[in-house]
Amino acid sequence: MENLSDQIFEKINAYWRAANFLAVGQIYLQDNVLLKEPLKPEHIKPRLLGHWGTSPGLSLIYVHLNRLIKDTGAAILYICGPGHGAPAIVANTYLEGTYSEVFPNVSQNEEGMRKLCRQFSTPGGIPSHVSAHTPGSIHEGGELGYSLVHAFGAAFDNPELLVACVVGDGEAETGPLEGSWKSIAFLNPKRDGAVLPILHLNGYKIAGPTVLSRMKDADLEELFKGYGYEVFFVEGDDPMSVHKQMAVTLNLTYQKIKNIQHQARINNSASKAKWPMIILRTPKGWTGPKEWDGVPIEGTFRAHQVPLTGVKENPEKLKLLENWMRSYEPQNLFDQNGRLIPELEELAPKGNNRMSALVYANGGLLFKSLVLPDFKKYALDVFTPGTVEAESTRNLGKYLRDIFTLNQETQNFRLFCPDETSSNRLEAVFEVTDRCTMEEILPKDENLAHDGRVMEVLSEHLCEGWLEGYLLTGRHGLFPCYEAFVTIVDSMFSQHAKWIKTARELSWRKPVASLNYLLTSHVWRQDNNGYSHQGPGFIDTVVNKKSSVIRIYFPPDANTLLSVMDHCFRSKDYVNVIVAGKQPELQWLSMADAIAHCNQGASNWKWAGTDHDQQPDVILGCAGDVPTLEAVAAAWILRKELPDLKVRLVNVIDLMALSPVAYHPHGMSEELFLDLFTAGAPVIFAFHGYVRIIHDLVHGRPDPARFHVRGFMEEGTTTTPFDMVVLNQMSRYHLAMEAVKRVPRMHNRVDDFIRHCETKLKEHQVYICAHLDDMPEVKNWKWSE
Amino acid sequence: MENLSDQIFEKINAYWRAANFLAVGQIYLQDNVLLKEPLKPEHIKPRLLGHWGTSPGLSLIYVHLNRLIKDTGAAILYICGPGHGAPAIVANTYLEGTYSEVFPNVSQNEEGMRKLCRQFSTPGGIPSHVSAHTPGSIHEGGELGYSLVHAFGAAFDNPELLVACVVGDGEAETGPLEGSWKSIAFLNPKRDGAVLPILHLNGYKIAGPTVLSRMKDADLEELFKGYGYEVFFVEGDDPMSVHKQMAVTLNLTYQKIKNIQHQARINNSASKAKWPMIILRTPKGWTGPKEWDGVPIEGTFRAHQVPLTGVKENPEKLKLLENWMRSYEPQNLFDQNGRLIPELEELAPKGNNRMSALVYANGGLLFKSLVLPDFKKYALDVFTPGTVEAESTRNLGKYLRDIFTLNQETQNFRLFCPDETSSNRLEAVFEVTDRCTMEEILPKDENLAHDGRVMEVLSEHLCEGWLEGYLLTGRHGLFPCYEAFVTIVDSMFSQHAKWIKTARELSWRKPVASLNYLLTSHVWRQDNNGYSHQGPGFIDTVVNKKSSVIRIYFPPDANTLLSVMDHCFRSKDYVNVIVAGKQPELQWLSMADAIAHCNQGASNWKWAGTDHDQQPDVILGCAGDVPTLEAVAAAWILRKELPDLKVRLVNVIDLMALSPVAYHPHGMSEELFLDLFTAGAPVIFAFHGYVRIIHDLVHGRPDPARFHVRGFMEEGTTTTPFDMVVLNQMSRYHLAMEAVKRVPRMHNRVDDFIRHCETKLKEHQVYICAHLDDMPEVKNWKWSE
Repeated sequence: MENLSDQIFEKINAYWRAANFLAVGQIYLQDNVLLKEPLKPEHIKPRLLGHWGTSPGLSLIYVHLNRLIKDTGAAILYICGPGHGAPAIVANTYLEGTYSEVFPNVSQNEEGMRKLCRQFSTPGGIPSHVSAHTPGSIHEGGELGYSLVHAFGAAFDNPELLVACVVGDGEAETGPLEGSWKSIAFLNPKRDGAVLPILHLNGYKIAGPTVLSRMKDADLEELFKGYGYEVFFVEGDDPMSVHKQMAVTLNLTYQKIKNIQHQARINNSASKAKWPMIILRTPKGWTGPKEWDGVPIEGTFRAHQVPLTGVKENPEKLKLLENWMRSYEPQNLFDQNGRLIPELEELAPKGNNRMSALVYANGGLLFKSLVLPDFKKYALDVFTPGTVEAESTRNLGKYLRDIFTLNQETQNFRLFCPDETSSNRLEAVFEVTDRCTMEEILPKDENLAHDGRVMEVLSEHLCEGWLEGYLLTGRHGLFPCYEAFVTIVDSMFSQHAKWIKTARELSWRKPVASLNYLLTSHVWRQDNNGYSHQGPGFIDTVVNKKSSVIRIYFPPDANTLLSVMDHCFRSKDYVNVIVAGKQPELQWLSMADAIAHCNQGASNWKWAGTDHDQQPDVILGCAGDVPTLEAVAAAWILRKELPDLKVRLVNVIDLMALSPVAYHPHGMSEELFLDLFTAGAPVIFAFHGYVRIIHDLVHGRPDPARFHVRGFMEEGTTTTPFDMVVLNQMSRYHLAMEAVKRVPRMHNRVDDFIRHCETKLKEHQVYICAHLDDMPEVKNWKWSE
Repeated sequence: MENLSDQIFEKINAYWRAANFLAVGQIYLQDNVLLKEPLKPEHIKPRLLGHWGTSPGLSLIYVHLNRLIKDTGAAILYICGPGHGAPAIVANTYLEGTYSEVFPNVSQNEEGMRKLCRQFSTPGGIPSHVSAHTPGSIHEGGELGYSLVHAFGAAFDNPELLVACVVGDGEAETGPLEGSWKSIAFLNPKRDGAVLPILHLNGYKIAGPTVLSRMKDADLEELFKGYGYEVFFVEGDDPMSVHKQMAVTLNLTYQKIKNIQHQARINNSASKAKWPMIILRTPKGWTGPKEWDGVPIEGTFRAHQVPLTGVKENPEKLKLLENWMRSYEPQNLFDQNGRLIPELEELAPKGNNRMSALVYANGGLLFKSLVLPDFKKYALDVFTPGTVEAESTRNLGKYLRDIFTLNQETQNFRLFCPDETSSNRLEAVFEVTDRCTMEEILPKDENLAHDGRVMEVLSEHLCEGWLEGYLLTGRHGLFPCYEAFVTIVDSMFSQHAKWIKTARELSWRKPVASLNYLLTSHVWRQDNNGYSHQGPGFIDTVVNKKSSVIRIYFPPDANTLLSVMDHCFRSKDYVNVIVAGKQPELQWLSMADAIAHCNQGASNWKWAGTDHDQQPDVILGCAGDVPTLEAVAAAWILRKELPDLKVRLVNVIDLMALSPVAYHPHGMSEELFLDLFTAGAPVIFAFHGYVRIIHDLVHGRPDPARFHVRGFMEEGTTTTPFDMVVLNQMSRYHLAMEAVKRVPRMHNRVDDFIRHCETKLKEHQVYICAHLDDMPEVKNWKWSE
């Protein structure tokens, strides 16, 4: 690292002025973007939108990181946490040329600069926050709180990467962000990269002060030392003073990071390090207008968005805007053509050293396919349906174990799970790897190691965010989760799905591995946990996202689960949701049948039906392991009791196969749909989740009103699996009764059959309550439900 | 407070032993619950479920808080954060008699004790975590992370209440919990009660160690001092030593709290206080079996759930269990009838002083109706539909302002909002109250005060959790939120809806105020924020919850919004979701019409239609403000272009009115449905959210396949409101084209009409892109979409 002279600070300051100038330009201007003539109302955009407040700080950090890269050659990923930071980040990616490379129409000249300004927060343009459109970003600045968790996800297994993560003081108030500081307890300096958090305190959110900004430095230091960091402050409102502090502090923190890593790597041993972090206190809307009409702007919440409004209408304000913009001296920053002058251009790194062109930020460029074992090797022998019992996820665990082994060298696969890997029966993975911690390991611990590849933390937010960061930088992973509690990350999933949709529309962004969820410990088998653990609603959130991105699978047994999982691990740029129980359950399909079933998405299970390739009287549909069990049992009851009734059983493993082709790429052809469900036979459909998904998916199919769906109807408690399906009217008897009711030619036999089923149901209930025989109120309550 | 003698510690210890004995009994026994004879396999439950690990610590805290209440008369609410803590908490509520009062069959004798044990984690019984069934609780221990935020919500405006909040070290890893510590920045010692956090470090989650438990005391102290607390440690594994420390520490912390409050109250001025907290370190599964087969249990993750399994089958293990249970000396704790002996009974507080009988924990007992202004006073004059423009939420702000004024004395109403009160145009409230902070207030701040009643924090988790705690202790509130970001609390909402459903089934729990959401800044008007801010999915989560609990409203204008809000503030035990835009928009209904419309849930807007009370050719349905605008405009286009087409316009304000009566209490009668939608006319329905809700709701209505729904199809970007509806094919032209296509007698005029609409659409597109005229690629992209 060279010694930092005053001259370099002058240059840094000039570069920063250029970035600030462009940030203001994006917010205000549609013409005269170089201020070659005095500002006139017609140069101002018709509607002023955008966020100035955070921009100067973000640009300050950017230009100083550029300096560090130039001096050290470090690979630095810039994560911009503060909301609506696009004016600054886009300006910087434009100044260093990357923006024009990916969006050639926004060229590095006056005309390009005009387009840059016009497109910002404009119809058909770009949003006011960092997004997939922004080269160099893996993080959307829309929904706040995930910058730091994304940063750590990116750093895992990327030993040469330094992630500079700017955390805004607004965002810092969110739970997920506060929960992310402890990620250093999982960051291994030997094998992982580093994260340098830069907490940017500019004092205000939209309207009120932030909690952290009102804390004294001593309290802040205590707090972050408590989190385990070594804290460095950079503070002030005098640019040159802040530049000098910032440069020195960046050098120092960079050196500390290098030392931590060096020690861990030469000693081949790691423990939890005291990583450095920076707290940067600068005024909100720094270098902007100081006040208007005696009311202060700079340094207050009034600088949050557009600090001067009505400039088009008010000549005085227009003049103030012009003075403000001219204070950056654009004539000394850009040449006549609007290009940054060479002596400033040379401050930015070149090629892929530019943060905006960093390959890590376009993870598809680094993507290596996962080496997968032959999933058929793990097949269970199922010669006859319904004769073998097994725990499907336990079997899957062996397959996952071997993925760890096969990809040991590449180090590009991890499990992320809220302390449930064993509970979800995936324990086989611990034969080859461990849970990860950087804290002290005690003799009484099990399967715990500093280099473990199973990331367990009791935070669905961290699991999700780490995995997103890991995937977007080109790696692979799986998030196994209790079904009910994955809804904790509903909104994070939604933002990721939106990111993927947008990224796919940008040809320069390369595909990354899909985000794979394994939802187990599901609604139907919360025998002791009860109602709070019964919630299949995540799929309702997923199914609404863009059909090109989302896939939902309900493998009914172990072999189908293997086949589906293998398919998902090979896919790119999707979100795959796989719902599969962990409890011992009957197995239905041999591996050959499982593969065929998965390929088709839904099949007629002829061995379960009684229609013998004829037009059925009624169809039992099912999706999900427990619904499948009940539907098969219903078919069996009907075969026994009403042998002349022609029943067909159709199992749906790929949920979106039900969708009309026009609405989802997996939608089965009309031909196959008719082949399976006929054009008009009544369908009694047992569904794992809430019924509305099925009602919607079959809308547009022939006669959707004939689909009678049973699913979870929010009747839950601490009870047996069978009682759960009874409470929700999805039991085999309920399905069978509904089926018979729907067949006109059975009209005269319905009453007898219903009596039969109700008797059987009562017997079952008695059995369920056998050891509660002295609590008749419970028994009665259950039956009268 | 009396001096604590050794004798009292012996008694406290005995009481604790009784609680521990009952916790073990609940996990293991179905008979011989007093151990009157040697344990036999048949005394053991058929399936062993439950969580021992956290129980001894929870009971320890309980018995010590009892002592504090006896000595001081303090009103203490016990919030049990650790998951699956029911064995301990239920045992304690049983020992002090409350449990038998609310569940008389579980009486305070041997038979009752047998039922107590049998019902635990048993079919038809109670869940393994604290829930609505548990007297004295306002907090479900199922989904982890919300104990502390509930505690603060309960403490706001309850100056005499002390909330003792036990935070588990597992739960402490969640983002929402970590985000909750800063709640003291909003807790006013003058007007609010206190929260005493007791962080219980027992070392392990299900399988691995917790992050906090592995930290050194010095680091923990630094962290929590950084958060602003004064930290007191209670540590050990020797019961008598821990008892003494705990008693002294509780006295000390109680005194500190009293001092803080006293100072603030006599000086009539408050600032952020250094509130005390306790860190309690005791072994997981303390007093349980030390080891089995040489493998340690107590103090390890193996004590998390059932520490000894297979006791029914293994006589040696059965003996160990018996020894363990006898180590509590039940014969010295309970009399022959199974009742706690009098000298221990007298340790517990009596009547409503018992934490399990605290009125605050059954908020309906304290409930006072909100004094509401006459909402009609705030009506906008709307003589002719579609002639006045207004911002509906800005108008609502005046109504909310006056609610603050009218309930100033009772101090039982607050707004909870992530720093968006002004952004959501509810600014009028700041005429009478302020944002709340306990941090320093600077001259440049606006509408900020220590006693402000608008709770702004950039955390949807805190807003939601505070409000839940506030409501469950008998008060009122409103959560205005950006629509897209309320999905951050999907899972919290779900748990609250489950709580309400369960509480309503318990006659001893009294109704509380509804949880009211105002979702604004919605999907259709994110003109500059773009795709990340466009997400109407919260209603999909809500609509799945129990129909007896949830209500969803789409007021299309200002007067309907007032009427709906007034209705919601008067309701109890619901979750009401109100979706209403904040942007200037056309007004449709006079106040009289608005009230009638709200009462019916959905109406035929005759002034918009052209069917003149005849059978319409086609019906335009709509729900939501933007869809209503488009549907009305579509009717206008059709009236102009195809005057002989009979079009009806039906606006739905109460979404659940669409539902068949059998599925939701608000479902409109079949008669009204036929009256509005006829039996067979095609319906083109413009919906605010994703289409699937409508497809589901009309399933079961006559001919649901005739409903053709347009809604948000995940096409979003930074663009104009009109372009948004175009991108999602819900524009007036799309609706009109679809309508004409669906009317057979229009067959020969369809092509002309479509050409007309497409021409108009192109003109509109050009208009949208007018100031982007030099970016043809954007223009083309938009049109070819």
